[in-house]
Amino acid sequence: MIDETTGAVDKRVHRSKQLILTTTYELLSEAGIDGVSVDEVSRRSGVSKTTIYRHWPSRSALLMAACSQAGPQAEVPNTGSLKSDIGALAVQLADQLRSARWAAILPSIIDAAERDPELAQLHRSLHAGLMAPYIAIAERAIRRKELAPGLTPADVAAAIVAPLFYRRWFSREPIDDQFVKKIIRNLVGELSRNARTGKKT
Amino acid sequence: MIDETTGAVDKRVHRSKQLILTTTYELLSEAGIDGVSVDEVSRRSGVSKTTIYRHWPSRSALLMAACSQAGPQAEVPNTGSLKSDIGALAVQLADQLRSARWAAILPSIIDAAERDPELAQLHRSLHAGLMAPYIAIAERAIRRKELAPGLTPADVAAAIVAPLFYRRWFSREPIDDQFVKKIIRNLVGELSRNARTGKKT
Repeated sequence: MIDETTGAVDKRVHRSKQLILTTTYELLSEAGIDGVSVDEVSRRSGVSKTTIYRHWPSRSALLMAACSQAGPQAEVPNTGSLKSDIGALAVQLADQLRSARWAAILPSIIDAAERDPELAQLHRSLHAGLMAPYIAIAERAIRRKELAPGLTPADVAAAIVAPLFYRRWFSREPIDDQFVKKIIRNLVGELSRNARTGKKT
Repeated sequence: MIDETTGAVDKRVHRSKQLILTTTYELLSEAGIDGVSVDEVSRRSGVSKTTIYRHWPSRSALLMAACSQAGPQAEVPNTGSLKSDIGALAVQLADQLRSARWAAILPSIIDAAERDPELAQLHRSLHAGLMAPYIAIAERAIRRKELAPGLTPADVAAAIVAPLFYRRWFSREPIDDQFVKKIIRNLVGELSRNARTGKKT
């Protein structure tokens, strides 16, 4: 009996936490980070502020939880070669930049990070999560001695995402297949051990 | 007599416009774009809302004017070679990204552009202004046949700024001289006609 009751309570708590996180993310999408307050999350979700604060002690903690749950979730390819790992990740990122909600939300977090140290911390952890798959494929490529000498995993990660980020948030041009293919071709040329050996791709 | 009076009025109008723009930019720096309202600009500058609206019909128009005046002002180098033009622009950009106020403000405009078409227009024109010097040096390099085949001026501009933008707003690592030198070396290798001819830099 006790177990069953605990189970029901756990489920209710779980549902309520989910509702809070979904509402937080919805507000983020609609109005950016300035649109998220514990008051507004409470009003819209119907969950009391006391309950929200019981799970997350601050607005930043709540934002962090909502973003960790709904943010970029990349699958890490392991195709056996740097070239196809890059291809797989670039196609996946291009796809997410075109349509994933986190792509519309990230600028708000970057902006907030300029002025608010707690949100800079949120940005740091989101960024680390976002880059993890790129670091992982680069580390494997280094073990396979596929990378051009002198490159660190962070260099590789930056080289893959920077042109796509630029296109998405700065030039705001469409990220079409032709562009993605061109980026992949350039990256493979630039990063792999055989770069600059005269073979034009 | 009439001319003198007109002159004095012109001067006063000019001073008042400057005060409005400076105040707008100050608010942008402190609180991001959401912190800028005509009400707040009026309150802080002491200039009436009627006067502000007489010069700029909307908040977006005011933001546009403030950003155009205080935004990035790059000098376009014309050193005679792609390599040194890239070097000059990259050093200049790195310096601005480290300390210029526009670098702290741009994310707010990018964020707003995600949700507001008028501010997307503001972003578009700021971005075009920001990229103009890169386009200019690339066009000259094309005329001198220094660029690797198939590259457009926009490709060159993107290649120069993307790694620096990534570092400033995404990875938030320091943009130190060593990094800038590495970027310049990579860019010259990547963009110039002699790229991938086996000569490792």
